[in-house]
Amino acid sequence: MSSNGKEKVVLAFSGGLDTSYCVKYLIHEKGLEIYSILVNTGGFSAEELEEIEKRAYSLGVKEHRNVDVQQKFYEDAIRFMVFGNILKNHSYPLSVSAERTIQAETVAEYVKEKGADYVAHGSTGAGNDQVRFDFIFEVLIPDVKILTPIRDLKLSRQEEIDYLKSHGVESSWEKSRYSINQGLWGTSVGGVETLTSNTDLPESAYPTQLTETEISTLKISFKKGEVCGVNDRKMDPVSAIKEISRIAGPYAIGRDIHVGDTIIGIKGRVGFEAAAPLLIIKGHHALEKHTLTKWQLYWKEQLANWYGMMLHEAQYLDPVMRNIEAFLTDSQQTVTGDVFIELRPYHFHVKGIESPHDLMTSSFGAYGEMNKLWSGEDVRGFTRILANTSKIFHTVNKDVSND
Amino acid sequence: MSSNGKEKVVLAFSGGLDTSYCVKYLIHEKGLEIYSILVNTGGFSAEELEEIEKRAYSLGVKEHRNVDVQQKFYEDAIRFMVFGNILKNHSYPLSVSAERTIQAETVAEYVKEKGADYVAHGSTGAGNDQVRFDFIFEVLIPDVKILTPIRDLKLSRQEEIDYLKSHGVESSWEKSRYSINQGLWGTSVGGVETLTSNTDLPESAYPTQLTETEISTLKISFKKGEVCGVNDRKMDPVSAIKEISRIAGPYAIGRDIHVGDTIIGIKGRVGFEAAAPLLIIKGHHALEKHTLTKWQLYWKEQLANWYGMMLHEAQYLDPVMRNIEAFLTDSQQTVTGDVFIELRPYHFHVKGIESPHDLMTSSFGAYGEMNKLWSGEDVRGFTRILANTSKIFHTVNKDVSND
Amino acid sequence: MSSNGKEKVVLAFSGGLDTSYCVKYLIHEKGLEIYSILVNTGGFSAEELEEIEKRAYSLGVKEHRNVDVQQKFYEDAIRFMVFGNILKNHSYPLSVSAERTIQAETVAEYVKEKGADYVAHGSTGAGNDQVRFDFIFEVLIPDVKILTPIRDLKLSRQEEIDYLKSHGVESSWEKSRYSINQGLWGTSVGGVETLTSNTDLPESAYPTQLTETEISTLKISFKKGEVCGVNDRKMDPVSAIKEISRIAGPYAIGRDIHVGDTIIGIKGRVGFEAAAPLLIIKGHHALEKHTLTKWQLYWKEQLANWYGMMLHEAQYLDPVMRNIEAFLTDSQQTVTGDVFIELRPYHFHVKGIESPHDLMTSSFGAYGEMNKLWSGEDVRGFTRILANTSKIFHTVNKDVSND
Amino acid sequence: MSSNGKEKVVLAFSGGLDTSYCVKYLIHEKGLEIYSILVNTGGFSAEELEEIEKRAYSLGVKEHRNVDVQQKFYEDAIRFMVFGNILKNHSYPLSVSAERTIQAETVAEYVKEKGADYVAHGSTGAGNDQVRFDFIFEVLIPDVKILTPIRDLKLSRQEEIDYLKSHGVESSWEKSRYSINQGLWGTSVGGVETLTSNTDLPESAYPTQLTETEISTLKISFKKGEVCGVNDRKMDPVSAIKEISRIAGPYAIGRDIHVGDTIIGIKGRVGFEAAAPLLIIKGHHALEKHTLTKWQLYWKEQLANWYGMMLHEAQYLDPVMRNIEAFLTDSQQTVTGDVFIELRPYHFHVKGIESPHDLMTSSFGAYGEMNKLWSGEDVRGFTRILANTSKIFHTVNKDVSND
Repeated sequence: MSSNGKEKVVLAFSGGLDTSYCVKYLIHEKGLEIYSILVNTGGFSAEELEEIEKRAYSLGVKEHRNVDVQQKFYEDAIRFMVFGNILKNHSYPLSVSAERTIQAETVAEYVKEKGADYVAHGSTGAGNDQVRFDFIFEVLIPDVKILTPIRDLKLSRQEEIDYLKSHGVESSWEKSRYSINQGLWGTSVGGVETLTSNTDLPESAYPTQLTETEISTLKISFKKGEVCGVNDRKMDPVSAIKEISRIAGPYAIGRDIHVGDTIIGIKGRVGFEAAAPLLIIKGHHALEKHTLTKWQLYWKEQLANWYGMMLHEAQYLDPVMRNIEAFLTDSQQTVTGDVFIELRPYHFHVKGIESPHDLMTSSFGAYGEMNKLWSGEDVRGFTRILANTSKIFHTVNKDVSND
Repeated sequence: MSSNGKEKVVLAFSGGLDTSYCVKYLIHEKGLEIYSILVNTGGFSAEELEEIEKRAYSLGVKEHRNVDVQQKFYEDAIRFMVFGNILKNHSYPLSVSAERTIQAETVAEYVKEKGADYVAHGSTGAGNDQVRFDFIFEVLIPDVKILTPIRDLKLSRQEEIDYLKSHGVESSWEKSRYSINQGLWGTSVGGVETLTSNTDLPESAYPTQLTETEISTLKISFKKGEVCGVNDRKMDPVSAIKEISRIAGPYAIGRDIHVGDTIIGIKGRVGFEAAAPLLIIKGHHALEKHTLTKWQLYWKEQLANWYGMMLHEAQYLDPVMRNIEAFLTDSQQTVTGDVFIELRPYHFHVKGIESPHDLMTSSFGAYGEMNKLWSGEDVRGFTRILANTSKIFHTVNKDVSND
Repeated sequence: MSSNGKEKVVLAFSGGLDTSYCVKYLIHEKGLEIYSILVNTGGFSAEELEEIEKRAYSLGVKEHRNVDVQQKFYEDAIRFMVFGNILKNHSYPLSVSAERTIQAETVAEYVKEKGADYVAHGSTGAGNDQVRFDFIFEVLIPDVKILTPIRDLKLSRQEEIDYLKSHGVESSWEKSRYSINQGLWGTSVGGVETLTSNTDLPESAYPTQLTETEISTLKISFKKGEVCGVNDRKMDPVSAIKEISRIAGPYAIGRDIHVGDTIIGIKGRVGFEAAAPLLIIKGHHALEKHTLTKWQLYWKEQLANWYGMMLHEAQYLDPVMRNIEAFLTDSQQTVTGDVFIELRPYHFHVKGIESPHDLMTSSFGAYGEMNKLWSGEDVRGFTRILANTSKIFHTVNKDVSND
Repeated sequence: MSSNGKEKVVLAFSGGLDTSYCVKYLIHEKGLEIYSILVNTGGFSAEELEEIEKRAYSLGVKEHRNVDVQQKFYEDAIRFMVFGNILKNHSYPLSVSAERTIQAETVAEYVKEKGADYVAHGSTGAGNDQVRFDFIFEVLIPDVKILTPIRDLKLSRQEEIDYLKSHGVESSWEKSRYSINQGLWGTSVGGVETLTSNTDLPESAYPTQLTETEISTLKISFKKGEVCGVNDRKMDPVSAIKEISRIAGPYAIGRDIHVGDTIIGIKGRVGFEAAAPLLIIKGHHALEKHTLTKWQLYWKEQLANWYGMMLHEAQYLDPVMRNIEAFLTDSQQTVTGDVFIELRPYHFHVKGIESPHDLMTSSFGAYGEMNKLWSGEDVRGFTRILANTSKIFHTVNKDVSND
């Protein structure tokens, strides 16, 4: 409780209509003192952040804080999504899911710091985000009550606007044609088309338009699974993601429409553009195909698939996630080398890799060409033994009626 | 044994240098009577087949047979690869692997029919095919001895040519720049570049060149997981694959370079073009994302992944493969509907689907928009229960030193 | 709605204190017409059923029905648990979980038949059963409202007794020291000890006491995975389960304390005795070890493990369960033969099996003794090829610093 | 090559008939200088080791070495088998498989130390051990030639005895009725019965006989998954295994007959006694059921299952094994506490556990009794959301013909 006797609430604030409504509602209907926070995972410019801070204060918050968590976002989530080549349903880099998790953790930290009595978020009752925020708060700040005015009151846009107007907020709340969520690991695009199963997003719905048509080659360098350079310039991973995005975005690469299962059991569909994530993941995967063994690739995929699902479904704090991270990290010791990718309008193609750990070295033989490590007789023996199980099974069961 | 006292051998014959060598070798060095067979999985035209038959007889086989197994290839392998959306290492439709299996089975049938004492194939000792042929023969015709002259003798091309010349065969055996294997489910392309890790196949290496640049939409219809129509024309699956190939091939779609683990433990790299397989699989997968539940998709992927690996690695006859097929078939009951795919030069994009089984129906709510089946309060309760495990784990372990 | 203008409720009725309370509550507080139903999964004798029916009418239900679902229980659940050798956490045959599912389905059928407006069950808010009933009802009768007085009102035993007394019910409601749930597939035992982590159930807590100490051998015969005979007497599966239980129960076999994760996220602990399930599953598994291939055993275990978890967690109606059943059923074609099990006080031991499908036939060689199918040279070649991957990995990475 | 111009061979030597034959054969037929080595994984007493050393020298080896690898065996293999609760086919602690791997590694080290030209082992061509030795040698000492006289020559016992006699070795080579392999992690027992599918080993075949019938309680203490104490005495893991074996062995606990798939594709059957491994694994698993989350248990089981299979099948050096070890190790941070096990003749029973990390703490609620963390309303909401997928699936597909 604050010094003026009011209870404190920390509000995850984005500056949009819903969370602006929350500010006024929490002040006037709940009598709370508001500490708003915007957790930037890479989607906001300095100007936008300043604008949002101004708006927060003008709406009446006690204190506003902008927190840049791009580095944490990378270290705690993106890194493992690269190690695991995670594309949900073989398509979607888990940008929003991962962002919300990191944002909720950061908000929970702020709640503890401020000793707040409540935590509030502006999620509706129809999506995944409500679960992600609720889940993290339930676990990390179990004694803090969660407030969700938008979910609870189910107001229309117009009702929210009218309420804000009645409290002196005269902003113009234009509803944009497409709902965009931008962050370091990609941008999602929702619109009237993604509410159907059979209509495509128009070209114009994507924030980044095709402006580059010259074919070029991108070189991404990895060290133990992490991006460490772009086109021969050394870079830390966060900078590299931005640089790749800058280079490849204008090719309109990495767009798709993701169809998937939401946490709440219904199917959802959303467009996205994610040039850098797609290039990094496909490049990283190509490098792994050369440097890891078959069973490493096999089990990495099983575990990463699960990691992605759990992350998507709000369960980042289950300790199995840490165990999987230990596996993935351990698997990256030899994933060092360069990947060459051809960029073209709308698509790209991995051309090849170079790595000191490349297992496709010709010292041992070349597939279909020469065999230095073994003889044809060895393969004959290999196959004879390999076939034993099936041979016995079919021989035994040939003469036995199955009825 | 044949009437003339000679032992019989069935030879898998392709008309190329290696198997032509085998004919002469088996006649002159082994004194066998040769029954050659070409098992066509879709890669040969009527003219080519006639030509190969002529060559077989001119080389001295007792009898030659061309067998068309495209329908069997579809029913016994392609069908399940579609059900399972199988792309090896997320890229390669298992065309060659599956072809060899079906071919070996057909050869084994022929061996039984002819009562042959030997079966011969022209595989070298460096690739996967030797294992696939050996394995199937070991299981299906365990008492028949397998002959592999090319693998055993390790001759150079020139030595084979000289030997043939010495037996009066004066054919021109030009080595083509790229080794091409064509079949109903795709065409593989090997060359000097694919023996390295870092060089790309040139555009010209692909048999099908880009000749169509007009953007168009392809409609593929599925019934219980199987293609049943193309652009509103009803078709059986084999015809549909060919029709899709005819339409989409000129867009130079479905090309990639596959890097993978061979059966013999080394890494291999091969280019391919497979417009129809890619379009069918990605379309089918999109339809499944709308019509199957999360856990159906999850387990289908695990099992299909394994199915593809076993098929690739010659173990098609393990009975677990039949069990997996039972699962996959059972899962397809609701995978009926139409898929719309945009074709562009070099790439394609699934635009959407229509299905009476679509689980993304708006009768129940729309993701992120409305919730008809549940309330915000339900989600709050859901999340509270879902978070219990993590909440308990972190609370219990917060106060306990882990040392 | 019934002819007298009252709305109808179907109540899952067991005759105990909680559901007796529900009858009075639903009549007096809700004004409903009650159709009670007891779904017998094998835990009730004819006398008990008659007694319960009498009690139901004496409490004032409009109509009571006892339904025997043992055969359905076997066909829809037990059968697949045997195919899958399902023991939750390697210990517990999923008796209660599976019973509740079948019971809820049967209740839902009755609701439809009666055209009831409500369905009621007596579950508390602390266990798994509430989820199982709610889940099945939500899916199968989504328009019928679910009533759960015990969960909602959180009354003490005494309050329930007092309320019943106030409505003229003077029954003696002794609380037994142990809470017992009996059914065809085992009996669970809860008590003050199972609420702790470190105390064991006393010998006396188990309903079946040790009365047989003579060592004997039990022979169970299976046909395609299903029990078809006991000690050389042909029997249908339900009868066989009862017969095995009759024979083996007095050895006090099949007891354990299960510790597991409840659906609601907390850990739970419960004792059980289940002689027949344990003997059948361990015998079936032994037979499978002889008649299925390695990969069949591997994938059966993965899928069955999942099947058991989903069944335990109320999700029996997810269509993936039908797909898994298709796999499991397909895998049982060769699981035919006899199993010999030694019974001793408190434990048993599988002595061996006989099957025409036994893959351990000496026609092919005997492990460690003779090799008829292959030569030592074959194994040398086999191992050389098998070792390729590791050999290449270690050779390549030996000379490369990992820093 | 040694100073006397002879090439060197390192021979894995056990003192038995086969490896004694090898010594004479390698000296007289191959002209090699022999460095014999016995790698003790816990199966040999000091007297036996001295005896074997004497025999080696008397047979004519240049140098003999006994190496005690019990600590390495624990750290590199047993430790992870405990973390993973690994019982092959739910029965057999992988004693022999793991021993051979560690032995082969140790032999390979010795080969490098001695700069030997050859390495020899006495395996036959019918078992798993040949693969394990060959595999490890192929990977770790790829340039050293492997000699396997027993496998290659396929001599009868009598032929070996005669050959030895002809070289002056007059030892009495009695064939024991049962083939016993003893080590720190258990003792295997093969005999005429285990070559059949339907006969049991007689009581007398087991080296450790029942001599203790007094029921007692054993307390095993674990710290981060490793045994650290027995009956309140602190101990290092190797000593603890021996102490548990000493206490529990006389109860004739931990016996079973394992049926499984050999590496070479046939089925094999072997008896074993392994009191300490069974008690430690079942105790450890019980502790984990209380201290790990559901998904930790789930994924540990998947990975450990695989780890056991790979270890059994000689592939210990695949790098995925190290990645799995990283996962398993990371999962053990909270697996600390005491386990209480009741010992009885022939069987045991886990009575309970105590742990500061126990997730079944009553602070949060007790299963089936009270719910402190949530309300009945929460569960209602939980179930409604959980049921969404099935509800939608069944509603959508109810009205659609599947034909």
